[in-house]
Amino acid sequence: MPARAVQPVKAILFDVFGSVVDWRTSLIGDFSAWASSRGLEADWVGLVDAWRGAYAPSMDRVRRGHMPWTNLDDLQAQSLEQLGPRFGLPQTLSDADRAYLLTGWRRLRPWPDAVAGLTRLKAHYVIAPLSNGNVALLVDLAKHAGLPWDMVFATELFRHYKPDPETYLGAVALLGLAPGEVMMAAAHNYDLAAARALGLKTAFFPRPTEYGPHQTRDFTADSDWDVVAADIEDLAARMEPEQNSR
Amino acid sequence: MPARAVQPVKAILFDVFGSVVDWRTSLIGDFSAWASSRGLEADWVGLVDAWRGAYAPSMDRVRRGHMPWTNLDDLQAQSLEQLGPRFGLPQTLSDADRAYLLTGWRRLRPWPDAVAGLTRLKAHYVIAPLSNGNVALLVDLAKHAGLPWDMVFATELFRHYKPDPETYLGAVALLGLAPGEVMMAAAHNYDLAAARALGLKTAFFPRPTEYGPHQTRDFTADSDWDVVAADIEDLAARMEPEQNSR
Repeated sequence: MPARAVQPVKAILFDVFGSVVDWRTSLIGDFSAWASSRGLEADWVGLVDAWRGAYAPSMDRVRRGHMPWTNLDDLQAQSLEQLGPRFGLPQTLSDADRAYLLTGWRRLRPWPDAVAGLTRLKAHYVIAPLSNGNVALLVDLAKHAGLPWDMVFATELFRHYKPDPETYLGAVALLGLAPGEVMMAAAHNYDLAAARALGLKTAFFPRPTEYGPHQTRDFTADSDWDVVAADIEDLAARMEPEQNSR
Repeated sequence: MPARAVQPVKAILFDVFGSVVDWRTSLIGDFSAWASSRGLEADWVGLVDAWRGAYAPSMDRVRRGHMPWTNLDDLQAQSLEQLGPRFGLPQTLSDADRAYLLTGWRRLRPWPDAVAGLTRLKAHYVIAPLSNGNVALLVDLAKHAGLPWDMVFATELFRHYKPDPETYLGAVALLGLAPGEVMMAAAHNYDLAAARALGLKTAFFPRPTEYGPHQTRDFTADSDWDVVAADIEDLAARMEPEQNSR
């Protein structure tokens, strides 16, 4: 498709949870260590998997208008309240314990290639998350994980969740760019399909262990995305201006 | 005022033009060098001063509802078109020349203390601009000047210009903080007065040469702001958690 190849990419937007940070291993490790130091018992693996499982359905209720705009921190708090007792947490958590668990999403570790790859890309492109996390969550996470963003695009800014078009086009408009000058980079094919449909460029890199034993998809690229890389460092190598055929 | 002193500051918002970057010397130097290399003559000092002079009145037209929402890039383009011929620019600029002049606002130099001070503050606080510049302008400026922001709050996100309350309270809400946990830092007393009226903490540092020979105000703090510092490095020293009485 030559039309897509003509416009040079000026900004790269990243999905965050799963693509840049390893939520599953981070949360299970964090909660298990915290609980054992306090003599608290629960099925942390089961809770983390179920909590992440509740993520998309809760956003879909907002996306379909079944509930008013609610940011991710608040959706996650509601999901935790519903799921906790099923996995061995007390019916009512103390404020401090609830806050500790909720802020677990701000203490996630980046995948080993993420910071080096982003730092390299930052020399040539505007880099930013385009994530369903809210601003406060993404800012704290970036500080914790050392993610060197130029800007933080939380979909909260547009009061829509991905894959609603308002999110991708909202970031493109705020950057003052054309869709073809912006690349969406993610480990999730659905995210790239939504971005491509709006004219953005696309980059895929797999995170085959994101969901641990429960991973059922996104092992490979489902489509001929503009770039298919091994990880973010490899993406940076492929996007080096000299080596880039665009 | 003990009530204000109780809540610890978690985030510091900075005014940018004049407070963090030196627009006047940067623009005059940039445009003069560019023009002389191309044999173009104009009154660059007069143009820069008049262009900056048009800045507040143009935003006020938006703030008072006399024109629909227009971001700063577009207001600056309109002002340049009106002012250019008065200072010796051709009636009609080429697209390339117009773009060069407009993007001058993205090539401004930070004041000498800015990057070191912000870097030091970033270790303890979320730091972000709260500027009437639009997102694209502020992101490019931060890359050019090396400003290590955690987030970029352009008032464009709220479709209001400072000192409208929506801008300060919009940033506070997106940070998930209380007003008293956020500090507004600026070289302009009016900006701090608006922030304080909404419950934010305030920090002043003077930039007595911002307007060159035309400076008429903001040589000193007009009020008992929470912190009055010599510059951003001094602000960072005063905000070191150990030395901070809050």
